[in-house]
Amino acid sequence: MVQFKASLDVSFAALSDATRRGILERLGQADASITELADAFGMTLTGMKKHVGVLEAAGLVVTQKVGRVRTCKLSLRGLEEEAAWIEQRRRLWEARFDALDEIVDELAQKEKTHGRKKRS
Amino acid sequence: MVQFKASLDVSFAALSDATRRGILERLGQADASITELADAFGMTLTGMKKHVGVLEAAGLVVTQKVGRVRTCKLSLRGLEEEAAWIEQRRRLWEARFDALDEIVDELAQKEKTHGRKKRS
Repeated sequence: MVQFKASLDVSFAALSDATRRGILERLGQADASITELADAFGMTLTGMKKHVGVLEAAGLVVTQKVGRVRTCKLSLRGLEEEAAWIEQRRRLWEARFDALDEIVDELAQKEKTHGRKKRS
Repeated sequence: MVQFKASLDVSFAALSDATRRGILERLGQADASITELADAFGMTLTGMKKHVGVLEAAGLVVTQKVGRVRTCKLSLRGLEEEAAWIEQRRRLWEARFDALDEIVDELAQKEKTHGRKKRS
């Protein structure tokens, strides 16, 4: 459970940067070398290596070095855990607002009845 | 578009902390004061105020001060944008792995045919 929480810490932090989200989108189209990614995002190789390192540590990207080229690809694990956490929260969130809606409706109904009683 | 991206930066960063995710879970059950949250998570008021501040800046929590008590509740906007981004990525991710599966199947098929030819 702690392991799971720690991995969400790392992966949500990895997703909290527009460039890193962009890299995931780019790798969703095709695998790419660090050089290709650096070119695509107008960055230095050093800067791109850091971003890819963060994504790799979060288990979102895997890299493989063949000769002098390091190729990056999406990891197989995908975004399952992150999606599951958000989906579960959203469901509770909605249930909570539905419950509040019911209370408001109930109060409105009481107000209506009360109004009628006053008038009669 | 830049606005949208910036807000995802802030909200994914807000979600990258287990205590802050815990606060969202707690507020999903009932509204709570800063003091109640601090007690629930065994934290100082100052520490809890910081966490709530991060969630408020990300638009995930709203707070209201009545007298000396600041009450925290989930914001109405929910986690829609974050869920949409993750869901879109997951779909592309799956499509990409499905395409890879097809290539692997195709190669396996060729290998099989090739094997048969060799044997005959």
